[in-house]
Order: sequence, then structure tokens, then C-alpha cells
Amino acid sequence: MEEYQSALNVQEGIEQPVSVNPYFKRKKATRRALDVDDFVRGILSHDRVILSQAITLVESTNPEHFEKAQAVIEQCLPHSGNSVRVGITGVPGVGKSTFIESFGLHLTGLGHKVAVLAIDPSSERSKGSILGDKTRMEYLSADPNAFIRPTPSGLTLGGVARKTRETTILCEAAGFDVILIETVGVGQSETIVKSMVDFFLLLMLAGAGDDLQGIKRGIMEMADALVINKADGDNLGKATAAKAQYKSALKLFPPNANGWEPIADICSAINNDGIDNVWNIICQFVNLTKSNGCFLKQRDEQLVTTFHDWVDFTIKNNFYSNNAVKNKISELIQSVKDKKISPYQAGTQLIKSIYQK
Amino acid sequence: MEEYQSALNVQEGIEQPVSVNPYFKRKKATRRALDVDDFVRGILSHDRVILSQAITLVESTNPEHFEKAQAVIEQCLPHSGNSVRVGITGVPGVGKSTFIESFGLHLTGLGHKVAVLAIDPSSERSKGSILGDKTRMEYLSADPNAFIRPTPSGLTLGGVARKTRETTILCEAAGFDVILIETVGVGQSETIVKSMVDFFLLLMLAGAGDDLQGIKRGIMEMADALVINKADGDNLGKATAAKAQYKSALKLFPPNANGWEPIADICSAINNDGIDNVWNIICQFVNLTKSNGCFLKQRDEQLVTTFHDWVDFTIKNNFYSNNAVKNKISELIQSVKDKKISPYQAGTQLIKSIYQK
Repeated sequence: MEEYQSALNVQEGIEQPVSVNPYFKRKKATRRALDVDDFVRGILSHDRVILSQAITLVESTNPEHFEKAQAVIEQCLPHSGNSVRVGITGVPGVGKSTFIESFGLHLTGLGHKVAVLAIDPSSERSKGSILGDKTRMEYLSADPNAFIRPTPSGLTLGGVARKTRETTILCEAAGFDVILIETVGVGQSETIVKSMVDFFLLLMLAGAGDDLQGIKRGIMEMADALVINKADGDNLGKATAAKAQYKSALKLFPPNANGWEPIADICSAINNDGIDNVWNIICQFVNLTKSNGCFLKQRDEQLVTTFHDWVDFTIKNNFYSNNAVKNKISELIQSVKDKKISPYQAGTQLIKSIYQK
Repeated sequence: MEEYQSALNVQEGIEQPVSVNPYFKRKKATRRALDVDDFVRGILSHDRVILSQAITLVESTNPEHFEKAQAVIEQCLPHSGNSVRVGITGVPGVGKSTFIESFGLHLTGLGHKVAVLAIDPSSERSKGSILGDKTRMEYLSADPNAFIRPTPSGLTLGGVARKTRETTILCEAAGFDVILIETVGVGQSETIVKSMVDFFLLLMLAGAGDDLQGIKRGIMEMADALVINKADGDNLGKATAAKAQYKSALKLFPPNANGWEPIADICSAINNDGIDNVWNIICQFVNLTKSNGCFLKQRDEQLVTTFHDWVDFTIKNNFYSNNAVKNKISELIQSVKDKKISPYQAGTQLIKSIYQK
């Protein structure tokens, strides 16, 4: 247990005692920081301490770290991609942590190495989402074949998305072959997760109305599978009925270009019921899309999307972080709301105020 | 009929004989082009010739026209907004033109003034979408209380969206109180239309499978009403069954923040059956959302969205129209696809190659 405990600690990027890892110890003795080669060698030899530190590097907002992180990612890139990337979403209360714990343990039991990442910006929460409360995934945290990484704190959604994409590359290069990316299903994060995973899983609860309030419209149509959790005890009948309803609803959606028909099913994460079935569904999906070429096609498209997102993000970021823009923008938005000025005129004024300096 | 015919012609921005409009004639005699005041006065006096010319000005890509168009829009802005803006989407074959014709004539019959705009970029079609084939809306085109404006040609989707938003302002200032914005339901246009209308109507066909192929996933959840057209003859039974299915499917979607429950219904545009009902649904929606404050709230949000879209569009457009970017980008995308370079590295290279000059 102590070994697991220290493995857990290092995932938080806290400076480690040299005893944790002899490789790290050796380096520690000769230089202050790992260089790019150290990181790459460590990751490719599946060293989870180095992996953790590399992720911390990727998450750093220090511009000096950026160059180094990019160099590490470049070198890991040829060793990445050999995984199934699964996005998991559902409102708070759907039992996401319990599901990921059961599901993750099922996968490690099958011999997989599972990395769990999260994509929601942590601003609303004190620190990170996963492992903010360590007891949330007690057993999976302690599994040597699982790697759980909390959401980096203090970043925007765009920033978290980029870090998560990069972290996925590092985890794959470090031998993790199932990447689970968690999101809470209430914001824009789902569209972003959809653009970085192979399979998108929506967890639901039985019972209409209140239970659904939190899920954003449009998410249901993104799902490759819709699994109703907490299908146990008194709730089993309701869950089974909901499954039938969702099943016929999913049929009304236009078909996916990849030939996959989204599946509705039930599970009980807490009782470990139906968890194996979820993995079977994902395997069916992977088999189908690999055989018809859509799996790799989607990944290629995602790479190009990532490129464009990153360029767009950077040029927008450069613009909006300009002090002149910051000073002017809220006043202009107010004028737009007050109908004193058209949105186009306001936008043009904002842009001119920058570029004509 | 001749009067209608000339009214139809001027909508295409073709130079008119001076006999069409005495106001225009007077101006023609004294100067070559209308000035801002001429445009505004003409629009506010509901002069459809001037309105047409103002729209042509808005659509112009000449930078000189841009300033003038913006000035016209600014002055029309306080007179705009007094309308119901309805987005109408559906795949080709769903009978959209027939529907808009029936629906538009129903509305003018009730005393409304109806403007029909279109949002899809016309690149794939020879010239504009609506009125490319004038026979598509033969009777509505000839109705003096209807104004049909084809999609401007040669613009990107973002460009068309901006023009359509601006054209809506001009049409409203010219007294049109129902604005119908048509889109084909196969691309990204729906999200954009959704961001500029009060009510979003999805036209469908009965029968699953092939008929639905064209509708993009996610659109169904955007719809405020889903109306199955061609519910006539042998098709009536199938349409009624489909209505029941969609009705229960819509219940499974998370509720709208504005309290509206999307409605599934049928109509036959060609037989004029159920067309009045569609308008009743829209009126119910408007009453509900006006009484709970969501109608104006959504419009205010749309103004702010428009502002941000326009700023983002302009800074992106400035970047991507830079020749150095144009020359470098496809090579970089190829390297990303070939996994020679990460999307982030490629993006950073692209941006640096511009800003470090």
C-alpha cells in the first residue's frame, strides 16, 4: 500500500523525496532539472514519476517550459496513438467516479493500462476535479496499472483542452492503452472532448425531467453510447424502461458517417453490473471503425482540428490579452446591449483601436 | 402583374429603369449614388427599391461601401427588432420552398409583412439559393407584402451570416415584421442561424433511414419545433406515426432554459394543411418567452455573440488572408497528418512566421 500511496502522491506534481525513484535520484545528483532526453527516455521506459513530471511541465504556464514541453511531445509523438480514447460525460450525481473506478478496474483486470484525465476547467472547484477528493476513486488510484491525473488548475477551458491533448500523447507513449477523459456534461467541454476521443460515452440516470436538467442540449446526439447508471434495486425497472425509450429515440437521429449505431444500455457501477458490457460495446465500435477506416480517418481529422484550434486560440488569445482590448471591451459590449451601436461597428472599433497604433 | 414583376427584379440589385420609383428618379437626376441619409429615409419609408439597394451595399466587398453600409445600419438599428425571426431548416427534398411559399402567403394573408432571407453560402450553386430558380416561390415572389432576397454570392459562410444579420436589421427597419431565414440543414449554417433567430423550425420527412441522411447530428436538439412535411395522400399515416415517435423523442431531450417544450407536428405545404398551425406554435412560443423575459434576453445575448463572432472572424480573417500564412499552411497541415510534427508545434511555427517579421 505504501508503494501505491507514493505513486499517488507523485501524480500531483509535488516534489518527491529522492527515494521514490532511483532514476530520478541519479539525475537529481547531477543536475537540477531533467532535460528533454531524460523526459523522453523516462516516459518511453514507462516511468510514471517522469511521466508525472512531464505532464507538470506541459501544464506549466512558464514560457521557458513551453519550448521544452513541446520538444518532449514531439519526441513522444511517434510512440503515441496506440490506445483507445474514451470520453465520459454525465451530470454530477450520475455516479461518474464510481463508474470510472469500476470500469478502470475492469480494464486493468483485463491487462490494460488505464490513464484517467479530466477536462473541465477547475475554476469552480478548489483544486482539480479528479482527486480533489481522493476517496472518489480509492481502488483505482491504488492500482499500479492505472494513472489518474487531476485537471490542471488555473487554466481556461481552451488551455485545459490543449493540455489534455498533449497529456494523452505522453500517456500513450508511456504505455497506457486506454485513455479515459472525464467531463461534467454541463458546458462546452463536450464538444472539445468529442474532438479528442475515439468513443464518446454519455452516462445518464433513469427518470425524465429533473435528472436531465444538467445535460446540455446537443450532447445526446454526440454520444456513441448512452448508458443508464444506477440500474439496481428499486431503480432497475425504471432504468430498463428508460433504456427502451432512449433506444428508440437514438434511432430517430441521423446515422453517423462512420456506420456506427449508438447504443442505449444500463449498468450499475456500484454493483459492477454491466461494466464489462460497456467495454464490449467500445470494442465493437473500435472493430467496426478500424475495419472501415473511420477510426484512423477521425484521428487524422482530429489532428487537423487540433492544429486549427491551436492557431485560432493563439491569435485570439494574443488579441484579447492585449491591455488596450481589455480596457475597451466591456464598455463596447455595454453599448451593444444598450443598442447605441451595432455589434459590427463595436467590433470594428475594437480592432481598429489595436491595429492602428 | 407587371408591377410585381418589376418589384421582383429590383430585389436582385439590377440597375432599375427610373420609372420604377419616383423617389429614386429624383435622386438619380441630381447625383450618381444615394448617400446615407437617402438610404435611411428610403428604408424607413418602407421603400423596397431603396431597401434592395441598401442590402446590395451591405453585401458589397468594396471597403468604401463598408463604411457607408455600417452608417446606414447604425441609423436603422433603433428602428429594428420589431419582428419575429424564424430560422427554417431541412434537407433538400423536404419541400422547404413550397413550405415557405405557403407559410409566407398565410402570413401576408394575416396582414404581416414577410422577408425571406437565406444563409447558405452559394458557392455550390450557380447564383444564390432562393430565386436561383424563380419558379420556386412563384406566388410569394409576386406578393407585395413579401420580400425575397437571394443569398449573396461569392461569400464565405461567416460572411453570409454577417450580411444576413445586417440585412435583418434593414428589413425590420423597412417594416417587415416576420423574418424567415432559410438554411439547408447539412452544414454548420444551423448553429449560426440559431444564433440569429428567435425560433428555429426543423422540417422533416416521414420515414427513417435514407430520408434523414442529410440532416446533421445535433440539429434536432436545436429545434423549437419539428414539423413533418408532405403529410398528405399515402404518406399521411406514416407522417402521423413519425410525429408520435418524434414527440416522445423530444421529451427525452433536456428542457430548454426558456421553458419552451419543442413540439412535433405534421403539415402538407402543398395542400396548405397545418400551415396555420405552425404559425400558432410560433405565436405560443413568442407569448411564452416574451412573458418570461427570455425573448429579449436571448436577443441581447445574440447581440453580444454577434459582437464576439465579428471580432473573432475579423482577427482570424486578417491572419488567414496574410500571404505568408497562405503559403505555409497546407505544407504544415500535411506534416501534421504525416505525424512529422505536433499540431501545436505546427501552429506555433505558423504564428511565429508571421509575428516575427
